[in-house]
Parts: sequence; structure tokens; C-alpha cells
Amino acid sequence: MASESELIAALSAVFTLSDPSFNSFKNVLVGIGDDGAVIKASPQNSVLATDMAVEGVHFKREWSSLHEIGAKITAANLADIYAMGGDPKYLLVSAGLTSDFGIAEIKALANGIKSEADLVGAVIVGGDISRAEKLVISISVFGEVTSPITRSGAKVGDLVIVSGLPGKSAAGLFQLQSGVSDSTFTSAHKKPVLNYELAKKFRNANAMCDVSDGLLSELNHIASASNVGIELDSKLISAIPGFKELGEATELEIWDLVLAGGEDHVFVATTSSEVPEGAFVIGKVVNGSGVSVSGVSKLPATGFRHF
Amino acid sequence: MASESELIAALSAVFTLSDPSFNSFKNVLVGIGDDGAVIKASPQNSVLATDMAVEGVHFKREWSSLHEIGAKITAANLADIYAMGGDPKYLLVSAGLTSDFGIAEIKALANGIKSEADLVGAVIVGGDISRAEKLVISISVFGEVTSPITRSGAKVGDLVIVSGLPGKSAAGLFQLQSGVSDSTFTSAHKKPVLNYELAKKFRNANAMCDVSDGLLSELNHIASASNVGIELDSKLISAIPGFKELGEATELEIWDLVLAGGEDHVFVATTSSEVPEGAFVIGKVVNGSGVSVSGVSKLPATGFRHF
Repeated sequence: MASESELIAALSAVFTLSDPSFNSFKNVLVGIGDDGAVIKASPQNSVLATDMAVEGVHFKREWSSLHEIGAKITAANLADIYAMGGDPKYLLVSAGLTSDFGIAEIKALANGIKSEADLVGAVIVGGDISRAEKLVISISVFGEVTSPITRSGAKVGDLVIVSGLPGKSAAGLFQLQSGVSDSTFTSAHKKPVLNYELAKKFRNANAMCDVSDGLLSELNHIASASNVGIELDSKLISAIPGFKELGEATELEIWDLVLAGGEDHVFVATTSSEVPEGAFVIGKVVNGSGVSVSGVSKLPATGFRHF
Repeated sequence: MASESELIAALSAVFTLSDPSFNSFKNVLVGIGDDGAVIKASPQNSVLATDMAVEGVHFKREWSSLHEIGAKITAANLADIYAMGGDPKYLLVSAGLTSDFGIAEIKALANGIKSEADLVGAVIVGGDISRAEKLVISISVFGEVTSPITRSGAKVGDLVIVSGLPGKSAAGLFQLQSGVSDSTFTSAHKKPVLNYELAKKFRNANAMCDVSDGLLSELNHIASASNVGIELDSKLISAIPGFKELGEATELEIWDLVLAGGEDHVFVATTSSEVPEGAFVIGKVVNGSGVSVSGVSKLPATGFRHF
């Protein structure tokens, strides 16, 4: 078993290899290795978010590699910052490691975290490690935002747009539970591919979320916080590429997957501006309350929650 | 068992009761309840730190109340920011909760976190909750700092100062393990009392740490990062109030407690400025490397680590 100082040295070696051309990297005045990290003052507002992933609850090590586990929890954190209209910059990583963790395991986990952070130019500036009976990872992300996009800004007449089709991760989970280990959908469950570039084009939106807990659940939050109703159109949703394949992937009801499947971190927003290229319109904001879906008689009860 | 939304509502109710006169509170543009929290831009540098506490590793629920557990992990986080010469402002709290957690339990934990944060005017702006087999809490803290005090700034000729006597928490742990459940020392282990006011007076220091892992371990980090040696004087240490009582509290060697006991979060610094009122001089910075303690023949091998 590796000692704590060996594990920390291995972690630091991975994390300090961030591309020095990243702007975030240039603004780190004190990085890994002191009591805290210090970041140069910025004229922009800060945006903060955190996500925790627990073995057996959010992931299974027999299904996912440590690289995938690290990347997935990082993606969930980055998505929260984009969902606020911000740019993720700095990450703090805490991990409770099981007794089988040696240098190879910590490097795999760290490389997974770094690979996802690299996609958006974010750098890991600190963390904490401990022992634990089950692997647990908690990441906090610190970003910058000019104009925050909250859940409460939806306006009657807005179009509802998404960055892609939700439900792939949920379909993949079902496949894994059914013994399928390798498909497009199991990959989406092990490590969803987020469209960060498209999320940045949602900056003119009036309200925005990432779909962590199911489209219906997230839109209900927006409707409630904004005091509006939302009408989704099943025809528009079923025209999103991949809908047919998703329906054929499992024996589950397609609308349960699309409306209640979480963890794809698809971005959903309401907008009165031009619809960004690559986004899909799926409905509109109306007077009233709650979320309805035309053409779907039985809505799934709740979103997908790790609780 | 309470639902996730009930637990989140209970958490939010506790955390949103922060004193509105706190400056940190006034700068929160978006608080708990969205994808992320938004903080107004500040002209100061940011300082970030994180600490995780795992049941059975960092605390035992049969020894400590949830209030104490919440306050202790919060104190560890706040100490990291003061140890960098900064002021803690905003906290993110992630928790993996065991199945016995109801509204009363989450409120006790949240009140413990808030009570410690209140001491320094810091506010909780977000978090994440999940299920877990063992209680795990991860807090990240975001603060502000004008001139960071790192571990690498110690200069030959500096005096070494501490904010108090380390070792009480370690003595308390030994007492708890020996069946003593209620003493000054067991209290210090369950929830150390940090001298945040004195930490602020260390702002002119050249190097600074909080003692999480033992005085010798922390000073070795400073010596190594600063390329200096450190000479402690056992006579000066033994003159700190409480030394005699600490020696009588357990059958452990007093110098093991004082030099290797962690988790009191005593602040230690090296300074060439005036010694702040209330601080104790315990040695000096010299040419060379490593840490020696005059009058102590056998130094403890390592600090106290949860690993």
C-alpha cells in the first residue's frame, strides 16, 4: 500500500501538468501543496458549485474504470458552472480512498479528472485525501460569470431549448444492470460526453439548467422558480437525432428515459433570443404552472436521484 | 426516512439564517437552490481550500454529536484559510448521509457547521447531498486574501510563534479510547476551539500553517519549503499555559502529544515582525534544514494522519 505522501506526490504530478497556456493556470498564485490555493483577483463575479460521488450509489467499480469515474464527477461539476452561464476555472478535489488504492489507481483517477478539466481549460489547484471504506470523491469548482443565468428567469413566450437528447445515461444504466457491458449507452452512463461548446452559446438564455436529475424535474424547478408553465412538444423531442435508437436500446418506455433520465448533463434553457446553432427547440414557456408534454399521456413521476 | 427534498429544505432553512449584516452575506448574488452560487466580484485575491471527514476515520458517532462533527470539519476548513493569511467567506458543503438521517440529524449537522462559520462571518452558499454507508462530509471554503502567507517564506532569524499549545485533541482521543468520555481534552478532540482572532494578528508573518498533522510535521514542511532549519526550545514550549495539565492528562509522553498531536489547528508561524499579543515564541529559524527541539532527546517519528 502506498503511503499518503506517495499518493499526494502522484496526484500532484498529474494535476500540475496542466497546459501552461490555460488562462486559469496563469492566474494561480499558489497551487497544490500549501494550506490553500491562491487565485489572482478577477473583475468578474465568482460562481461556485460542488458535487459528490459515492461508490455503490453513483458508480460501481466493476462497471466503470477509475478514469471514467474521475471524469464523470468532474463533468457533473463543470456542467453546474456552464448551467449558471459561467466558465469553470479551478477545481478542488477531495477523495476518500479505499485500501486497494496504490499509485496506479490514484493516477487513473487523477487522469480522469484532469482529462475532463482539460476540455474546458480548468485546473486542479488543491484537495484532500483520506482513507474510506468506499471510494468517495467530492469536487468543488470555482468559475467566473458575467451575467448569471438562474432558474428563475424564464419568461412567457420563451422557447425551451436543449443541447441534446437526455436519457442515454439512464438507458446505459439499465443495460449494465441487464448484463450489457459495452454499447453507446453504457459508455454514456460510465462517462457522458457533454457539449460544453454548445452550452457557451446558451449565454443569452433567460433561464438555464443542466439535466442532472431528469428533464421534467429540472424544468419543474425552472417553472416553479420563474412562476410560469412549460409546454413540451413530444413531436419536437422525438425529432432529435438518436431518439429512435434510444427507444430501441432497452425495453424501458422511451418517455421515461427522455423525461426522467438524469446524468447526461444535457443543457436545457429558455430563451427569447435567436436559437443557437446546434440546439433543439422542444417547447415553450406559457402562463400557468408545471410542465406538460403534448402527446405523452403518462408522465414519469420523478427524476432520477441518488437518494 | 426523510426524502431528499425534505432534507434539502431543512438544510437550506438552517443555512439561510446567516446574519444579514455579514459582509459575505451581502455579496451573495445567487445563493442555495440553483446549479451554483454566484458571488460579487472582489478586488482581492481568492483563496480556496477543502477538507473531507469520514466516519470511523476522522470521527466516531458514538463519541461526537452531529453538531460537534459539523463544527469540527468546518473549523479545519476555516483554519486553512487563516493559515494562508486570508479571511474565509463562503462555504460549500457536501455530505453523504447514512440511512438513519432524518430532519433532526440533518439540522444538528447543519447547525454545527453554521455555528462555526458564524464565528468568522462566513456563509454557506451551496452543497450536495447523497446517500452513503458511512457519514462523509466534504467542505470547501472560499476566502479572500491580500498577501498570501505560504510555507516557503520563513527567513533565517525569524522567531517561531504559536497561537497555543498543541496536543489537547490527541490527548482527548487517547482518553476517549481509554473510556474517559468527558474532559477538557475529550472536548478538544470532539470540537477544538480555534483562536481565529489571534490568527488574524499573524498577518505580518513570513510563513504560516495550522497544525493539522502535528507541530513537527508542519514545521518540517515550512523548513523544507523555505530551505531553512528550525530550532525549537523545549523550555519555551513547556512554559505555555496548560503544558503541565496536558502532561498529566494521559500516560502518553508529553512531547509526543505536543510535537505530533494534530487537529487542534493551533496556528504556527515564523515572523521577523513584532510578536502579536497572545502568541507564544517557541523557537527560531536558522541556517540548515529540518527541525530540532532542544532538551528533547527522542522526537516522535511522524505527525498524526488519518491515513
